[in-house]
Amino acid sequence: MMSRQEIMADLYRLIQERKTHSSDESYVASLYAKGLDKVLSKIGEEATELALAGKGGETDQVVYEMADLWFHCLVLLGFYNLEPERVFLELERRLGTSGLKEKAERGEKHR
Amino acid sequence: MMSRQEIMADLYRLIQERKTHSSDESYVASLYAKGLDKVLSKIGEEATELALAGKGGETDQVVYEMADLWFHCLVLLGFYNLEPERVFLELERRLGTSGLKEKAERGEKHR
Amino acid sequence: MMSRQEIMADLYRLIQERKTHSSDESYVASLYAKGLDKVLSKIGEEATELALAGKGGETDQVVYEMADLWFHCLVLLGFYNLEPERVFLELERRLGTSGLKEKAERGEKHR
Amino acid sequence: MMSRQEIMADLYRLIQERKTHSSDESYVASLYAKGLDKVLSKIGEEATELALAGKGGETDQVVYEMADLWFHCLVLLGFYNLEPERVFLELERRLGTSGLKEKAERGEKHR
Repeated sequence: MMSRQEIMADLYRLIQERKTHSSDESYVASLYAKGLDKVLSKIGEEATELALAGKGGETDQVVYEMADLWFHCLVLLGFYNLEPERVFLELERRLGTSGLKEKAERGEKHR
Repeated sequence: MMSRQEIMADLYRLIQERKTHSSDESYVASLYAKGLDKVLSKIGEEATELALAGKGGETDQVVYEMADLWFHCLVLLGFYNLEPERVFLELERRLGTSGLKEKAERGEKHR
Repeated sequence: MMSRQEIMADLYRLIQERKTHSSDESYVASLYAKGLDKVLSKIGEEATELALAGKGGETDQVVYEMADLWFHCLVLLGFYNLEPERVFLELERRLGTSGLKEKAERGEKHR
Repeated sequence: MMSRQEIMADLYRLIQERKTHSSDESYVASLYAKGLDKVLSKIGEEATELALAGKGGETDQVVYEMADLWFHCLVLLGFYNLEPERVFLELERRLGTSGLKEKAERGEKHR
């Protein structure tokens, strides 16, 4: 089995490679052809579908919709040529932040 | 540097462990205390913030907001005790799906 | 020009009437045929499109996307046979709530 | 009872008037103080809460969350000094669009 890191990196590479395909051949190419706003509104749509799956309590559906959402996140990263590594580094930084410190930091941002 | 696999798994373990903390100590515990709907509405909020960052073209902000969104996705997985591994397996399955096949599959779902 | 009251009520009646049409004839009927989750995910999608228009500062686009969002709200009301009047009554109730009181009430809910 | 038109117009006037208040006095003023992105992310959050209420089938909650969403839409209109009348006119325009024509027009936009 592939490591998690490879899956995300490979999916990102696939998405980057699809940029050069025609819209007829590739879903990713068709998204890029529709422009940034379409990529972004897909993220909103997929997040809502994930929330609905979460509300419904159907765990297989939660997994499926979360994969959909992460996939479209990779499409957005591809739009800006941002390696998924960047997001993992940000998460790693937060992993170093513990307990009350985490809360204080987030509290600042969200209130 | 930690491998990506460990980061997601470690963050998930951290989130699971925070479940038992008090809301005062931990942001994660405070989210769970507010209930599933709060976790789900955070996903909608963070997705919108990601879309806004994407629209604004501020790439650091895109990375930051995507980390926020993925973090809250892990919180949702934690709510249902679903390992992030499940989502990676779903993405790996899609990675095996290529070109027109990918498009046809997605087309089915989204139309 | 029609009064605002009639527009919302008339649109709602139109939507209710379209329920009985075939999906080929009517966009509204095609939404209902796809089920509640589709109606709800459209609300998430349209809200994101509105947020993106707002971020872009294109005021004509803000108006257009807000109309889209409100239209899909009426579709949701139609799903549950809830008259738009119900929402206006709730807004009217809030209109009676002033200053600090409004803030305190909302604060309660959102914190 | 107030007409629907007056409620929306009065709420809009109230929101415009609150702009000049301090954040401590008014929820609306505190939103504006946090800036456009906060107003927009609230729209995403409230739309998700509406979708969740819709999924849950709690009709009182649907009405309550829709009022919340429309209220924050008025806050966005207030940000750009756009009268709600503008949105009603757009909806009125669509009311004039019937059956297959409606479908064709929307189809164009959404596909």
